Parts: sequence; structure tokens; C-alpha cells
Amino acid sequence: MERAAFLHRPDSEYAYLYTKDLMHIRLRTKRNDAERVELISGDPYLINEEKWHKESRPMKRVAQTEDYDYWLIERGAKYRRVQYAFAIHGYDGEDLFYGDRGIFELSDQARAKAENYFRMPYFHEADRFKEPEWVKETVWYQIFPERFDNGDQSNDPEGTLPWASKDPSTTDFFGGDLQGVIDHLDYIQELGINGLYFCPIFKATSNHKYDTIDYFEIDPAFGDKAKFKELVEKAHERGIKIMLDAVFNHFGNKSPQWQDVLENEEKSRFKDWFQIKEFPVQASDEDSRLDLNFDTFAFTPRMPKLNTANPEVIDYLLAIATYWIEEFDIDAWRLDVANEVDHRFWRKFYDATTGVKEDLYILGEIWHSSQSWLDGHEFHAVMNYAFTETIENFFVKKEIKATKLASGLHEQLMLYREQTNQVMFNCLDSHDTPRLLTTCGGDKELAKQTLAFTFIQQGSPCIYYGTEIGMDGAMDPDCRKCMIWDEEKQDLVFLDFMKDLIAFRKEQQKVLSYGTLTFEELDNENQFIQCSRSFEGQTIAGLFNAGNNEVEREFFGEVALSQNVDIVGKKAVIKKNGFLITKG
Amino acid sequence: MERAAFLHRPDSEYAYLYTKDLMHIRLRTKRNDAERVELISGDPYLINEEKWHKESRPMKRVAQTEDYDYWLIERGAKYRRVQYAFAIHGYDGEDLFYGDRGIFELSDQARAKAENYFRMPYFHEADRFKEPEWVKETVWYQIFPERFDNGDQSNDPEGTLPWASKDPSTTDFFGGDLQGVIDHLDYIQELGINGLYFCPIFKATSNHKYDTIDYFEIDPAFGDKAKFKELVEKAHERGIKIMLDAVFNHFGNKSPQWQDVLENEEKSRFKDWFQIKEFPVQASDEDSRLDLNFDTFAFTPRMPKLNTANPEVIDYLLAIATYWIEEFDIDAWRLDVANEVDHRFWRKFYDATTGVKEDLYILGEIWHSSQSWLDGHEFHAVMNYAFTETIENFFVKKEIKATKLASGLHEQLMLYREQTNQVMFNCLDSHDTPRLLTTCGGDKELAKQTLAFTFIQQGSPCIYYGTEIGMDGAMDPDCRKCMIWDEEKQDLVFLDFMKDLIAFRKEQQKVLSYGTLTFEELDNENQFIQCSRSFEGQTIAGLFNAGNNEVEREFFGEVALSQNVDIVGKKAVIKKNGFLITKG
Repeated sequence: MERAAFLHRPDSEYAYLYTKDLMHIRLRTKRNDAERVELISGDPYLINEEKWHKESRPMKRVAQTEDYDYWLIERGAKYRRVQYAFAIHGYDGEDLFYGDRGIFELSDQARAKAENYFRMPYFHEADRFKEPEWVKETVWYQIFPERFDNGDQSNDPEGTLPWASKDPSTTDFFGGDLQGVIDHLDYIQELGINGLYFCPIFKATSNHKYDTIDYFEIDPAFGDKAKFKELVEKAHERGIKIMLDAVFNHFGNKSPQWQDVLENEEKSRFKDWFQIKEFPVQASDEDSRLDLNFDTFAFTPRMPKLNTANPEVIDYLLAIATYWIEEFDIDAWRLDVANEVDHRFWRKFYDATTGVKEDLYILGEIWHSSQSWLDGHEFHAVMNYAFTETIENFFVKKEIKATKLASGLHEQLMLYREQTNQVMFNCLDSHDTPRLLTTCGGDKELAKQTLAFTFIQQGSPCIYYGTEIGMDGAMDPDCRKCMIWDEEKQDLVFLDFMKDLIAFRKEQQKVLSYGTLTFEELDNENQFIQCSRSFEGQTIAGLFNAGNNEVEREFFGEVALSQNVDIVGKKAVIKKNGFLITKG
Repeated sequence: MERAAFLHRPDSEYAYLYTKDLMHIRLRTKRNDAERVELISGDPYLINEEKWHKESRPMKRVAQTEDYDYWLIERGAKYRRVQYAFAIHGYDGEDLFYGDRGIFELSDQARAKAENYFRMPYFHEADRFKEPEWVKETVWYQIFPERFDNGDQSNDPEGTLPWASKDPSTTDFFGGDLQGVIDHLDYIQELGINGLYFCPIFKATSNHKYDTIDYFEIDPAFGDKAKFKELVEKAHERGIKIMLDAVFNHFGNKSPQWQDVLENEEKSRFKDWFQIKEFPVQASDEDSRLDLNFDTFAFTPRMPKLNTANPEVIDYLLAIATYWIEEFDIDAWRLDVANEVDHRFWRKFYDATTGVKEDLYILGEIWHSSQSWLDGHEFHAVMNYAFTETIENFFVKKEIKATKLASGLHEQLMLYREQTNQVMFNCLDSHDTPRLLTTCGGDKELAKQTLAFTFIQQGSPCIYYGTEIGMDGAMDPDCRKCMIWDEEKQDLVFLDFMKDLIAFRKEQQKVLSYGTLTFEELDNENQFIQCSRSFEGQTIAGLFNAGNNEVEREFFGEVALSQNVDIVGKKAVIKKNGFLITKG
């Protein structure tokens, strides 16, 4: 066997408490290298009395990537402590013992030594990753408030343009506001949405509001606190949760704190709120400068970076974080540029906010591997771009084959705990990316196929406003066009499709949240993928054709959703952009 | 190449801030598989402007184990952010790109994609592992207070036996106390010791005091607070640091809190301080019971386990932790059974104690891989048993060959950040293990050889009281014999050896703390190992013969310490149990 490919990391996503009384233990081996794997385990203090090192339990192969096999076992422990190691049996006949002190031949001697074992020293509920249950049942809808609807013209900023009168530039205002969202809550509810994710709504200069001036105020062009309270209440009445966007990496340059720094320089009482290298501060309104003497988001002088290690800043930001929960009952925070803020701050953020609302959902904006933020003490999930990007690469860009799709998705799932995957945030587009339909080159069937595949994966899906009616848009600012409310310009067929897809997702929530993901009959040639999710005897299966040639397959169960498929009895012919989702 | 053996984990011991402005990046490949490795890296926001993806910097192979090669590079970043990936060149001619999205051919296309890179999103000093500098200069001495010396017979507990009148049972008392330590501070100082590690000194029932009754009181048989204050002050005057033992996993059953539970059961105000499954509590004085209805340390009913998630318990324990620092100026805490207490508690412990004394040393008792406690937010080090066990397995038990010794030590070093390794706590024996001389079968030359090898490794070494005068002792209670003060019964030759070894360690502290560890000319057959440590042009080299046959070697530099070696010019013949340490 390839010993060098063995991987286990105690007290990580490879060994964690899943429920209060049950831990998950994972192991990685090289692909198709180990025939079977067993767990040797027992209480650390009973190895001599119980001789448990002579026994073992089979592990299950739960994921396979291009390079690896991943194995899993669930285990309880009467005394809430486990010592464990792996017995790995190769196809080549080799039998190895893998534990805390390395890899040995699978001998009685290796098994009998207590120090050879990995440890879960105690099942601490305090350290367990706790996912908010409701997120598993949620289908999100992302709103860019300035572009959803202008429900109140009295609060329009100066120079507001008529709704949808042009394609947006980076500086246009069209008057979108909170009343515009309230006016369409029925629409949102009918679509089946039960979670709204708002881009920032706090007082700020720009149309996107990521350059906050005052986190304790609603931007006057969007409404006021009473209006926001009304929005939350009316959403909650409809069973819709509310997620706000917290920009805690940086302030806007028009914030009173930064203005005070510019005015008073070293004498400013806010000078330690930022990351300033020397005074006087070289402020500038240019969009990008490489020689700034203070840290910013990217190279944007309008967004001076905060010093989140400063206790005053910490207190200030945590006051904001709890204020909107306590006073307005919001259900979730989405954290902008979350990876560039320190872990110590996010741990305090987690404690403060979940202390106020136990089932709050904390979602970090991170585009890369995020294990160190998802250990149960910081975020519940990240914007799962690495996961959805793989889906896009297969369906939309046709850059990868089916094997690579299966591999990529399994690889991503194995980066995180099972309960993390259940609440990951899966979006195919957002205010920071081109719209799905545009990446699909305007091919609506392809967009629907991609959405259908995404909706049967683990994690809670999110639709970017307007995707459901066939809106397109290139990279920012084009992806921030005004929402189309004229039904004649909406794609009502697409809308119906989305309603069905969302309804199916919610109806099958249990299987889609908890079901094991498997891929069968992968076919590299024709870009066809067969995927299933199984949980407690229920199975959702999907057949997806991302190639040009028709594929004929037998299927099982009852047809739930399909596109471009001819069905005769239990036989289906799946055409280009076609898919068939069954349940049974 | 063996792709499946590639390993990197962002934001871990594979990628971390070493100093404020410099990060370390490590990579693992299969042993002797990659000919060279380069880092491709740059600012995340400048990949397009700077085209840095076209450049790379060579990494250095810094460790080699039986299965792996480990590569390292240091890197700063003007804007305190780095995006990076690896270019891996195989001996087989293969060139691969390894980054956040997996492994690809090393093409321009793979290099140009921003999402393919791992991230260090920002150099946060708040998240950096900060080691206390003084520990690198410290040679520790562990004292089991009941057995060091009886300096004050007025505080002897009832039934105290005459000093060293017999081999100790588990329940004997011999009257050792704090005055006994004060009386020998000159001895300790002359030995060269500059750190004292005390087994528990708080009020407790047993002779070992791990069953605490009151953490705010010195055990009356040891002295009182005034006496302890005197001890700390006199030690500090001599430049000797003080480390106390905190047993925060469990209380003693005679503690007022547990006694209150036994008396009032469910009505006790302390019922949630422990981990009680049901009432009435089935207390018992038996040493081990498998059917207890409350959690304990191991199966010891005398040691009921604390609920360290209870805010009252947290406050109580943190008050203890800060009290002894603030009032008595102790320098370090050693945490008993540290792995069985939750991470959330230890993070609070770290913040509370380092908040009071910035350069406090926090040492956890963990016998297995400890990455998740050594991320910079909990402990500075663990009792490095896994490291010293490898040394013992080679020198003392002759169970492993030199290759395996080199492999095992490098493997352990690669588990932790460089600055962690610099302050690891390396002991060859303690109150929980047989004494070194006993594991050496009474062979003093072997014991000295093992100590010499340990003292030239990274980490701060600790001597268990009496080892320096040739004391022996089997497993507890035999390893807790009374210290021998009669010079005629002390091995003064051993004592002189230890003084020299300690003096050498302190004189060469820089090289031994920071020096790269390399092994050369490993020879499996004769159990001979050649090891060197190099830093800023200085090298400490060691030749150690753990076999029976003589080994002849040329050596470089100046002879510093030796045993069983014949030297002619620059040629040394190293005999059984022999070693030669040189500097140059």
C-alpha cells in the first residue's frame, strides 16, 4: 500500500463530535489502495482490562476522489472517551496499523501499546460544532437592496435614475429600498423562499453600501429602523428568516472614526482603530494605490482596514453584532471579507452573538479552504464557492469531466465536518460574480440543469434575485441590474421551474440534508453524471447529461423533476442539457 | 511522483506567522520523491498587475522521515497578505502544481488562476503563536514536594515517617515541604537550574496532592502562603522561575464542593459543577469502578470530573489561575490531564493568565499529538513524551534503529510550529514514569548518554529531582522516593556531569533553540547516530553510539562534552554508551 498517502488528524474534521454522544472518525487512503479499513478502539483507561485492542469494527468508504478514498465510522463511548487507530488492509495483501505514533505492521505488539493510539480525550459538548437546524430547511434569496424595487420614492437619493432606465454603472442609484422588499414579500413567499440574504443596508456612501459610515443606522435611502423592523416582522410572519451583511474588515472612509483620523492624525482618539503605519495618513480617493501608509481592503483607500485586535474596536463591533439581533431579531449574519479578520475576533463574535440568539447562523465570505474558521468556534458555514465552482466547471464551462466533478465535490465535503456540510451556503452567482445565465451564454436550459444539480446537493442553496425570472448580467456592475417586475419581461416558465425546484428541495429536505452522496457509472466520455443521495431508506437520484449526445438509462423510483428527457416505462433518454431527478 | 502523499494545510503548523512579519510555509512530499520544490506566491490582489504567478522561490528540505520529506520557506509580505502554491518537480521528471483546488500539471493556465492558490489572508499578530522567550533559556527541575526535603518538622502530617526510612508506598508521608526546597535553593542554583516545576502544592488529601481540596490554600503540611512567597522571591533572586501544577480536570472528593454534592445531592448548589448522570451519586472510595453515575478522572471516584463549561466553574478556576500569578508572581502553569478539559475553557485560561502576565508559560500534560492545543490560543507547549519516548526507544530500550530515531524526531518536530518546538518541555522521567536510571537497568553511562542527546535537542529540558545524583526508582510509587541528601550516598560524579551538561546547554542556548536539526551518515546496523544543530554559522554536533561495537569517526570543531571516547587529533573512537559533542 501507499503508506505515505494515509492521513488522519485528531481533533479536526477527521475526528469530531457529530451529535452529543456520537463521534465521526475519518481516514484518508490512496484511491483504490485499501481493500478494507477497520477501527481499533476503546476506553483509554481500559485497554488492559478489556483487551479491546484485539477487536475492530469495519469502516465504510464514503467518498472517492481522483487521488483518495475516504473512510468513515460513527462511534459512541460509554465513558465519553475514545482511543483509536486504524487497521488498513491493502489489495496487495499488506496489513498495516496506523495510529498516533505512525505506521506499523498490524501486529499484536503494535495493537497492544496504549501510546500508539489517537485520542478523543473526552466528548465535550462545549467544543462540538453546532449547526442551526433551520438552515437545513432554508432556501435563500439574495437581495442587492438598491436594485430590488423602489417602494418609496420619498427616500430616493439625489440623482436617482428611473427604474431600469439603463444598465448600471458603478455609481448609479435607482432608488431600491426596504419598502420595495416589503412590497414583494408575497412574491418571495410564493417562490418558496424562506431566507433572505441582504447585501449591506447600513448607512454608507456607495450604492453597494460596503463602505459603511454608521453600522447603527439604516441607510436613509433604504428606509429607517421602523421600516426595517416592519420588514423583519412581516418576513417572520411568513416563515422567512433574515440575514444581514456585516462588513467588519474595514470601515468606509466617510465614517466619523476615519474622518476623525484624517482631521486629527496622531491625536485622533481613533488612531488605533485602524492599521496605520505612519502619520500623516496619505489618504486619497483613488480606487487603487500601492503606496498607501495604512492598510485597506485590497488597495481601496475608501475602505481603511480595522484593527480588530483593539479592545475598543472589538467592543464596538460586538455591540453592532448583538444590537441588530436583540433589537430587530435578525436570524443570521453574513460576514464580508471574513478571512482577512483575525480568528480571535471571530471567536468573540461567535460567543457574543450566539449568546444572544442560540440558533443564529454565521456565514463567512471565504472563497478558499476554510477549515480553520469552521471548527465550531467561529462560523457555521462559508459561501461555498469552491463547491459550486466545481459544478460550474462541469456543467457550464465544460472544463472538467464527470470523474473530476465527483472528485471535486467529495474533496470539498471531506474538508469539513458532516454537520458543517449540511448548512453550507451554495450559490451559483452573487453580486460579486457574473450571473448564472450569463456564464451559461444565455442558455436557459443549461442554467436550469445547473440549478437542479446544485439543489440536490448537501448545503442550503441560494438564488440571486432575478435568476428565477431569467435575468442575466456580466461581472459587477452588470450583475447588479434593476429587478424586472414587468411580468411581460419576466421569464415565467423559468419562474415556474424555480418554484418546482424549491418546493422539491423543501419537500425532500431530510434526504438532501443528511443523505450520503454517491456517484455511479461515471462516464468520462460523454459528460454524463449519475448522482444519488440516500438517507434512512429514501433515495433521491439524478441523471444529468452535460454532453451533446443522448444517453439512455434505466431509472428507479418516481419521476420528480425532469428536462429534455424522453421517458418510456423505466427507461429514460436524457438529451443535451437534460436531467431526470427521481425519488424512491 | 506520488501525488497522494502531498500535504499542505493552510492556517496550521504548515502555514503560520513565525515572527510579526515573517511566515513559515511547509509542504510534505513522499520521501525522496521530489527533487526540488518552489513556492509560487504574491499578493492576492496583484496577480494580474504583477504577474507574480510566473515566478517562484526555492524551498528547502528541512526534515526527512521514513515516509516523507518536509520542505520549508520563510516569506514576508509588504501588504501582509500572501497567496501561494507549490511547484513540485519530481525525480521522475514530472512537474506538478499543488494549491487550494488540488493538484494540476504545472502549466501557465494552472498558475494564472487566482482561485488555485492557498491563502494567508492577513498577517494577524493577534493570531500568532507567541512563545515566552525565557523558556528557551530554561533548564527545568521537577520537584515532588513531599519527597524533596523536610525543612520544617512542625508542619509534618500525622504519621510522618523518618526521611527515607523506607521505600514509599502510595500512602506514606515523609514530611517534605516548601522550607525543604528553600533550604536547597543554593544546591539547585549551583546545579545550574533556572526553572522549578512543582507537583501540586495546594491543600489536598494525598501525598501527591492531585486530589485538591482548596486551590486557594497551600497544603498545611507543605507550609503556608508566606512561606511560598518567600520561596518564589528567593528563587527569583537567583534567576529561577516557578511553575505550579493546576489540576483543573477534576477536584478531590474531599473538596467542599463535592462534599456539598454528597450531602445535598440534587439540591446542592454545586451539582452542576460536576458531570453527574443521576442522583443519588454513587460515591465510593474504591480506586476504580466501572459503574459510577458521575464522570471522574480515569475510573477514580476520589477525583470527580469538573464541568468546565459551567460559567461558575470557569470563573472559579480562572480566579485561581490569576490569583497565584498576581499575588505570588509565579511564572508558569503546568496543566494536569489537560487533554480531557474542553478547548473553550483553555482559550479563556490563556486569555486570563497571559492578560495578567504576558510572558507566562502554559504547559499542558498531553501524551499524544497535540496540534489542536498548540495553535497559539491555548498552551505554549506540552510535556513532550512522544519526542523523548523516541529517544528512549533508541538509546535505552534499543527497540528502534538510528533511521527510525531520526525519522521519529523529525516527524514530531513537523507536528508543531517552529516557535512551539523551541519551548517544548522535554523530560525523560517524571513522577508518572519509572526513573531514567531504572529504565536504563542501572547503567549510569547509558543514562548520561541519553541525557546528553536530549539536551542538544530543541525544547527546554527538565530533570526529575534526584536524577542528577543517580537516583533510581520503578513506576509510581517507587519513582517518588525521598531525595538523598547524604553526600556519601549521592553520586557526585553524576552530579558533576549534570552540572557540565546544564552549563553547556545554557551556554549554547541560541544554537540549541534555533538550530536546524540534521542527521548524517545514519547507520542502521550499529545503532550509531550523528546529529547536528546549526544556527547563524555555529554548529553543535553530536556522535552517539548506542551499539556495542566501537565506531571510528572524524569530527570537526572543538570537543565540548564526551564519554567513552578515545580522541586522537580529529579522529574519535566512540565506544559503547559513548558520545562526543563538539562545537564550532
